[in-house]
Amino acid sequence: MRILGIDPGTGITGFGIIDTEGNRLRHVDNGIIKTRSTAPLAERLQLIYRGLQQIIADYQPDYMSVEQVFLARNPRAALTLGHARGAALLAGVNATLDVFEYSALQVKSAVVGYGHADKQQVQQMVKTLLNLPEIAQEDASDALAVAICHANSRTVNHIKSLKGR
Amino acid sequence: MRILGIDPGTGITGFGIIDTEGNRLRHVDNGIIKTRSTAPLAERLQLIYRGLQQIIADYQPDYMSVEQVFLARNPRAALTLGHARGAALLAGVNATLDVFEYSALQVKSAVVGYGHADKQQVQQMVKTLLNLPEIAQEDASDALAVAICHANSRTVNHIKSLKGR
Repeated sequence: MRILGIDPGTGITGFGIIDTEGNRLRHVDNGIIKTRSTAPLAERLQLIYRGLQQIIADYQPDYMSVEQVFLARNPRAALTLGHARGAALLAGVNATLDVFEYSALQVKSAVVGYGHADKQQVQQMVKTLLNLPEIAQEDASDALAVAICHANSRTVNHIKSLKGR
Repeated sequence: MRILGIDPGTGITGFGIIDTEGNRLRHVDNGIIKTRSTAPLAERLQLIYRGLQQIIADYQPDYMSVEQVFLARNPRAALTLGHARGAALLAGVNATLDVFEYSALQVKSAVVGYGHADKQQVQQMVKTLLNLPEIAQEDASDALAVAICHANSRTVNHIKSLKGR
């Protein structure tokens, strides 16, 4: 089973791809999609959307996993983040991936084992779990973390997803 | 020249299509895309995206005009609105429409003549300018208003747009 994790942002969108074989996790790829802050918003969203379309075409994941946001810093930041999340979710659902959302608490619990872990602990654990040579770029690491979260929760959530249809 | 105005929302997205012939405006169609609040977010965004894709295919507009948001009520509302705006902007740019954004102040100024007009005045003026038999549904009326705004500002903004590329 192949999972594409996404950490969306209009400036930088991180992605991370992992395979699961039974209880084992295997790192496939990770990286970021960067957009110019001077470009019109619609074009930045298109770059994110098309970038993810390409990644999905190349790697053929079965699931998309995206962090759910409850509290943003402020309305402006929330609006900006919403645009990028919308583009990411659309790229997934338009490619007929099963899309899942997880809270930061769920991601931290799944990766580190408790929900109040700090950013560095999560990054370190992602590196360890996936045998990475070094800690991945911040947004890519967050994307891998939400992919790992889906790998660990897939039984529970697959039931939820089927019920939601 | 044909303009598609959009008032995005995850629950209700309004759309309005107008033609301009010289200084004259002609109403073509208006309506709303509604999504179920119980559906998963990714599916709601897909419904908005596909709905707009269909409208664009049917009516072949040249421009998309969307209200720009500076201040949302709160981070949660802003995030939700951002998702819907992202889906709308992507539908436009992926269909190779020229996409423009206008502030509420610009929309009100263009439709009513001054920036602090209230909602009812804008709705009434949209009805009058487009010879509608009655005031359109709220979100559809807002979509027509932002389309009218683009019609009135297109010379100025076309220059801006060309510069932005």
